Amino acid sequence: MSSKSSKETSIDKSIETSQESRVQINHVSDSMTLLLYLGLLIVTILTVWLFKHRRFRFIHETGLAILYGLIVGVIIRYGSPSYQPSITMISIEDSPEQSNKLPPEKVLVNMSVLNESQIYEYDYKRRLYGNDINAPILDEKATFNPEVFFNFILPPIIFFAGFSMKRKHFFRNIGSILMLAFLGTTISCFVIGGVTFGISRASARLASIVSLSECLLFGAFISATDPVTVLAIFSDLRVEPDLYALVFGESVLNDAVAIVLSESIETYGSAAAAGETAAISVLKAIGSFAGVFLGAIGIGCLLGCLTALITKFTQVREHPLLETSLFVLMSYSTFLAAEAVKSTGIVAVLFCGICQAHYTYNNLSDESKATTMSFFGLLNFLAENFTFVYIGVSVFTYSSHLWDPVFIVAGFLAMIIGRVLCVYPLCGLANIGRRRSGCAIGLSRMHVLAFSGLRGAMAFALAIRNTSSDARKIIFSTTLILVMITVLVCGGLATQMLQWMHIEVGVEEEPNRQRLDRQDSTGEAASQPSLRDRSCIALGWRKIDKNFVKPLLTNARPLLTETCSGCCLPLARLLTTTEQLTQAAVQRDLYSGGQEDTDVIVPPDSDSFAGLGEGGQVNKAGPAAPASLQVATTGDADNNGAASPVLF
Amino acid sequence: MSSKSSKETSIDKSIETSQESRVQINHVSDSMTLLLYLGLLIVTILTVWLFKHRRFRFIHETGLAILYGLIVGVIIRYGSPSYQPSITMISIEDSPEQSNKLPPEKVLVNMSVLNESQIYEYDYKRRLYGNDINAPILDEKATFNPEVFFNFILPPIIFFAGFSMKRKHFFRNIGSILMLAFLGTTISCFVIGGVTFGISRASARLASIVSLSECLLFGAFISATDPVTVLAIFSDLRVEPDLYALVFGESVLNDAVAIVLSESIETYGSAAAAGETAAISVLKAIGSFAGVFLGAIGIGCLLGCLTALITKFTQVREHPLLETSLFVLMSYSTFLAAEAVKSTGIVAVLFCGICQAHYTYNNLSDESKATTMSFFGLLNFLAENFTFVYIGVSVFTYSSHLWDPVFIVAGFLAMIIGRVLCVYPLCGLANIGRRRSGCAIGLSRMHVLAFSGLRGAMAFALAIRNTSSDARKIIFSTTLILVMITVLVCGGLATQMLQWMHIEVGVEEEPNRQRLDRQDSTGEAASQPSLRDRSCIALGWRKIDKNFVKPLLTNARPLLTETCSGCCLPLARLLTTTEQLTQAAVQRDLYSGGQEDTDVIVPPDSDSFAGLGEGGQVNKAGPAAPASLQVATTGDADNNGAASPVLF
Repeated sequence: MSSKSSKETSIDKSIETSQESRVQINHVSDSMTLLLYLGLLIVTILTVWLFKHRRFRFIHETGLAILYGLIVGVIIRYGSPSYQPSITMISIEDSPEQSNKLPPEKVLVNMSVLNESQIYEYDYKRRLYGNDINAPILDEKATFNPEVFFNFILPPIIFFAGFSMKRKHFFRNIGSILMLAFLGTTISCFVIGGVTFGISRASARLASIVSLSECLLFGAFISATDPVTVLAIFSDLRVEPDLYALVFGESVLNDAVAIVLSESIETYGSAAAAGETAAISVLKAIGSFAGVFLGAIGIGCLLGCLTALITKFTQVREHPLLETSLFVLMSYSTFLAAEAVKSTGIVAVLFCGICQAHYTYNNLSDESKATTMSFFGLLNFLAENFTFVYIGVSVFTYSSHLWDPVFIVAGFLAMIIGRVLCVYPLCGLANIGRRRSGCAIGLSRMHVLAFSGLRGAMAFALAIRNTSSDARKIIFSTTLILVMITVLVCGGLATQMLQWMHIEVGVEEEPNRQRLDRQDSTGEAASQPSLRDRSCIALGWRKIDKNFVKPLLTNARPLLTETCSGCCLPLARLLTTTEQLTQAAVQRDLYSGGQEDTDVIVPPDSDSFAGLGEGGQVNKAGPAAPASLQVATTGDADNNGAASPVLF
Repeated sequence: MSSKSSKETSIDKSIETSQESRVQINHVSDSMTLLLYLGLLIVTILTVWLFKHRRFRFIHETGLAILYGLIVGVIIRYGSPSYQPSITMISIEDSPEQSNKLPPEKVLVNMSVLNESQIYEYDYKRRLYGNDINAPILDEKATFNPEVFFNFILPPIIFFAGFSMKRKHFFRNIGSILMLAFLGTTISCFVIGGVTFGISRASARLASIVSLSECLLFGAFISATDPVTVLAIFSDLRVEPDLYALVFGESVLNDAVAIVLSESIETYGSAAAAGETAAISVLKAIGSFAGVFLGAIGIGCLLGCLTALITKFTQVREHPLLETSLFVLMSYSTFLAAEAVKSTGIVAVLFCGICQAHYTYNNLSDESKATTMSFFGLLNFLAENFTFVYIGVSVFTYSSHLWDPVFIVAGFLAMIIGRVLCVYPLCGLANIGRRRSGCAIGLSRMHVLAFSGLRGAMAFALAIRNTSSDARKIIFSTTLILVMITVLVCGGLATQMLQWMHIEVGVEEEPNRQRLDRQDSTGEAASQPSLRDRSCIALGWRKIDKNFVKPLLTNARPLLTETCSGCCLPLARLLTTTEQLTQAAVQRDLYSGGQEDTDVIVPPDSDSFAGLGEGGQVNKAGPAAPASLQVATTGDADNNGAASPVLF
């Protein structure tokens, strides 16, 4: 670096000062934007409290968040002065390096100032289409990089869904849930894709923009149903647990399937575009689906179990803050690890959440239990509500909109047809198996299930991720409309719907039965009801889990030294901690029955967070949670206060 | 939008597909970067646990984080394949619109692809200097936008410092702390600025790059001492509370002063650059300092008190999740609000934290108390350790470095001289007042205080914020070196230093005295020790706080109806909640002495978080905290488990 003349230095200084004021302006506007969203969330929370306080149920907090967002979006769009940044237009010719016809990722601009050349670096942002060129600035206001949703907003929501899952009822209905999630989402995706493709052929303009694979992509986006709103209402009203489990299980797995499905369709699209035959393209898409899904499940379970091993074999629980940090970091690493290997972080984080709840949680100190539960509950709540506020605001402030009435109507019709063709036939199919165990899904339950197909954060996040082409813009705008309609209409009418369909509400499981259920949920002395709707594989897995996986990953009984035999014994001894040995002795004295297992994790001290958090809801414990809360807080006095080593 | 030909559509498709793969590549690399930092944090946490477990004290977790960061930085820099994005170089001439000689904020590139013109938008990133042009890509690896530190990493650290402050010991030493923080930081800033300016004149190259105002800026950056490392060690060893309070108070307020000071110097710099006289420039700088500081304190206290009012006058505590969310959102809003009005969010958030702890915390439900404490404790811990990891990594990966040995040596000498000239004279000055109350700061304590001047997150964040000019790059690189040296050397030798200086460690306040202290910390029956080192203003404020502010903002006694008289009575009645009336009755029965007030907030159920979190440390309660923990957990059996309405 050579020394400079004083003139050059003075130019440097002036640029530095101006640069600083530019940094300052950007910083102020960033702060204003964030403050705006925080203010919206605060107002939403206060209104939600007021509505809860006054028992007003016609609009749910998510709907409220959207409405507030819409109002503020209008104000930002039409009320605030627009800041016009300085823009320079440059033309470049076809150069040999640009053979792939792609714009360069960076542009270095050589500007001569007072006969001295200065070089500035510019980053690629996006392609401007006809309409954008007139309004390239608007999207600077109150918008975030869509990747923020995928990297920071969705993971806590999905992780918490897995972490707070009521595993007992989920696994009781696992057959129906898997069918609805996998087969149902696929059916829904293809029906929606087909219907929108068909209808959009009627419009010459649409036909030239939207292709079949884009319609299918739209189908995949819009097939992800959202658990937040409906489940909150279900929890509040204490709807019967089986129906709750069906809706919860379907919407959680739905999200996972939809995201992988959309990736597969993109794989198909690019394979087809590369001129490969339809059969190979389809095979590639199916392969991608299976690979991504299984890979994500593998990564999620692996890192979840690794956390369990670390928390079991180190004494990190002596330092709750370190332990909690480790737990949080490992959970988020799961998402990133899956994304880094091009799998799907959302799916990984869901299964990581399930593993963390099933294994790691049992190894944590009492403090860490309470802290992790409340930490993720809080993150989940904030992330959900932020998403809905953002959905509302972005209707007006996002510049990549392309409203096409034909496509919106087509999408709306297709969504309804897709939902009907997904729920009713599959429930009928599921009933073949369920009737034997006497728990068939009645017609009114099917209506509720179909009605519960709200679209939310996942559909929005998938659609906003790429709005580079016109087709993607149409898809995004239509998705936004459908999310708002379903959340406002279905969310507002959900309580009515339950009344009309005569669905049993206010279901309380008596503490004693609950207690028993808990014991038999992995115990050998399982009573008949818990066996229904369970396949041999599920039962086999339960046995392995109880005898080998749980003793390996947690300090639970039976000891590996008791279940392993022969040459594995030395290894089993190695993998059994001293704590496990002493604790097992204590447990043996306390309980002579089957092994304890919790249905939904209830931290010793922040009970209501467990119930509340589920489905993003407040003071609305789920169908099973209130009973289990009663167990922990009133039903079972000696478990109150400091948690016994058995229950938690 | 007109319809397109099939050729145009096919170009669109190919661009969309490529665009998607580009988005995918960026996403994978973002995920890898984040994963890297999370992995580093996980390894740091596990090592910290191991060191704690083995009682190995020669390196502290922050030093460890830096070391791990350095190792990984080297690997990234030299080990990973470099990804070369496509770059196009463009020259533009002096155009009339560019009269201010600033580069445009956006560049629109018109590229003709197959004779069709396409327009792409590019965002300004930075100016490239001589060296940068050869390595414009390296900084893409494993670096974040510096604004991330200011907007997301620093606020939780500083908020938690205020929130978890041991107010009793802090206010006992308030006089000395304020002197050290305000006068000391100013002295340190000007001494460092002067010394570096003087030494740098010896090098012709440096003299042409670094001006006086930049040296002063460097002085302001490097005057911010960091509480994390030393306080963690102090807590661990239970150093005598007065010394702890001095170091804590100085470093916390230091940060606030340094950030405002650096802004004032920039104001001075631009005023001087605009050709104003020195006197006016100095006056402007002082005005800016006072305005920004008082404004920030005002905003912090205002929003803190507003939160207290909301939590007092609504029944939102019936829904702990809503309450906690509100608390978190309001606290973060304070930062953003201050930034949005061009004040200093960091200072605002510090005072907001103090208000939240002093007022709002008392209104929260027990669950929210535990959750807020553990939530902010966790955020603080993660943010701190992330900063130190990032400091380590950025030594090698950040491309805006300019290592100048002369400036580094000058900075190092200046830092030592500045610290000495700040601590010893001011402590001597403080001793004039302190000697009367028999608690003078001895020479060995002064040595420890001087030695505790580690530099950390704040110095780093201030320096990384703007690295646009060569001077700023030199400042940044030097700051980085000084942070590392002080954290590794002083952090590693702190335990030794305490031994050499014969500082009393292992100080335990017996529960009973602690209990008494607590009562008298705002009670009328204050015993003599708590009066020392307190001015009339402090005592006057305590009276107003106790009689009017606390009863207004919390449900504490005495009631406003008891302290107000005459025409204020109707208003006082309006501002007294029914809960306050009933609770007051309960309290009156329980305690006949002065009003309860906690020194440091200890949530009912996650005690160790309160102590641990402080100073980012784990299982190392501060000098007062262990005793208070004992009060809560063992010393006072009837306060165990469910919190009594009085203590919490």
